[in-house]
Amino acid sequence: MKIIKDVKEMFLTSQKEILNNKKIGFVPTMGALHDGHLSLIRQSKKDNDITIVSIFVNPTQFGPNEDFNKYPRTIEQDIELLEKENVDYLFLPNTKDMYSEGFETYVNLEKLPNHLCGLKRPGHFRGVATIVLKLFNIVRPHKSYFGQKDYQQYLIIKRMAEDLNCFVDIVMMPIVRESDGLAMSSRNRYLNQEQRKNATILFESLQLAKNEIKNGETNPKIIIEKMKNLILNKYLKAKIDYIEIVDLNTLEELHTIKESCLIALAVFIGEARLIDNIIINKNEKC
Amino acid sequence: MKIIKDVKEMFLTSQKEILNNKKIGFVPTMGALHDGHLSLIRQSKKDNDITIVSIFVNPTQFGPNEDFNKYPRTIEQDIELLEKENVDYLFLPNTKDMYSEGFETYVNLEKLPNHLCGLKRPGHFRGVATIVLKLFNIVRPHKSYFGQKDYQQYLIIKRMAEDLNCFVDIVMMPIVRESDGLAMSSRNRYLNQEQRKNATILFESLQLAKNEIKNGETNPKIIIEKMKNLILNKYLKAKIDYIEIVDLNTLEELHTIKESCLIALAVFIGEARLIDNIIINKNEKC
Repeated sequence: MKIIKDVKEMFLTSQKEILNNKKIGFVPTMGALHDGHLSLIRQSKKDNDITIVSIFVNPTQFGPNEDFNKYPRTIEQDIELLEKENVDYLFLPNTKDMYSEGFETYVNLEKLPNHLCGLKRPGHFRGVATIVLKLFNIVRPHKSYFGQKDYQQYLIIKRMAEDLNCFVDIVMMPIVRESDGLAMSSRNRYLNQEQRKNATILFESLQLAKNEIKNGETNPKIIIEKMKNLILNKYLKAKIDYIEIVDLNTLEELHTIKESCLIALAVFIGEARLIDNIIINKNEKC
Repeated sequence: MKIIKDVKEMFLTSQKEILNNKKIGFVPTMGALHDGHLSLIRQSKKDNDITIVSIFVNPTQFGPNEDFNKYPRTIEQDIELLEKENVDYLFLPNTKDMYSEGFETYVNLEKLPNHLCGLKRPGHFRGVATIVLKLFNIVRPHKSYFGQKDYQQYLIIKRMAEDLNCFVDIVMMPIVRESDGLAMSSRNRYLNQEQRKNATILFESLQLAKNEIKNGETNPKIIIEKMKNLILNKYLKAKIDYIEIVDLNTLEELHTIKESCLIALAVFIGEARLIDNIIINKNEKC
């Protein structure tokens, strides 16, 4: 695996591969890699000739009171993992090259960020859309891979890539979970033993919702109420940021559950703000 | 010259040229072509293997009370002119392909638009930055050409291309003028005979400013006052939108003129809002 830190070198390297008719798969990450990331990388390896992974903890997607400074940085372990996966290139830019002096250009979406995490984290998706567009312009991949755990992010990137003519296929991969159901996340590292044990309440509440729907419940309010009760009954210290049942494409709140929906939630377990979700398709197994 | 209307076909065509190691020059326009546009095209022909011109009257850069509907559309004459210049491709997309259903992604700059025309035309440069980024992503040019008449636009595109890693050289070409000094503009077509005759007051006031500076005047307020007097004395029906003397890089108003500056103005002559500017470099002839 070749590690590239220079922005222009990354661009020229990727261009050279493209000129050699190679298909480029790209997995942008903030590092602290786990099996969720690895599932994206493995899919990219399957689908493409060349796989490029980036690690960049992007300051513009963190709010002023968020965890930018303490976000886990485990670069040596990350490199080892990527070597094992036979990744072709690791792009490892630094902040002052990605946001050079006088930087003032941002990518904004007008609708999709006004839901779920976007409401709770103002400016977050502006930062995400901006950095991903920049990375797309540097790497110019044919396909790029995102995890379902950040479903809103996936939808926003997909919309942005289409709206701004990025000519990249945005591929979403399923959530990878620990054996007890907890969705893998770099932020799980923030949890102490007690918190880690109780962090399963996110997944359990989603399973409850799924069962409710399976049993014919179509009223989101009733389902959300039961999810809240489960979470707080099991772990009183949990702080629910939001629980919502929304349209899969627009993220607008549903009044009745019909064919399909996204059930999404964010819960503080101690300092860690954890998110999880489940896609319901009544016509499919899921 | 090949005319391409389909967005994906344009992308694939340009990609194919790039894969053949051709250097692509790109001139985005809104049509109603004049010698100013042709100077950009000729420079592109000199600098590159392939020249692509786009014609697209971009709705998102017009305000609700602006001239989108009556903006001159002279496509047949435009095609003839481009044929004569041996342009390789004309990209002629339609609005519903460029802004497809559900479009919601815009490129915003936070500082440069808060000056000059940006203050008078809210949202204008958001529309400009968005469409130019889209066109860059479709065409993926090596160089792209813009006229100095829209100096603020040039500066914004240059900043955006750098901030968003577009890897395109942004080239500015000098203002092309009629024999009496009027800057060439598609909007000059709005002028009747009387207005056309008096439209030279923009250039004349810039010449006055240049002479003032040559004679040692360093106070922008005094110069601007003299420019206003000249304009209104010569043509009382003119409506001055702004006259400013600003920093060449930041577009911030200057309190004293030192080495260099931009003198820029917008004046309504009848319904036509005309702009013009001059760059002063005390160390150079200009």
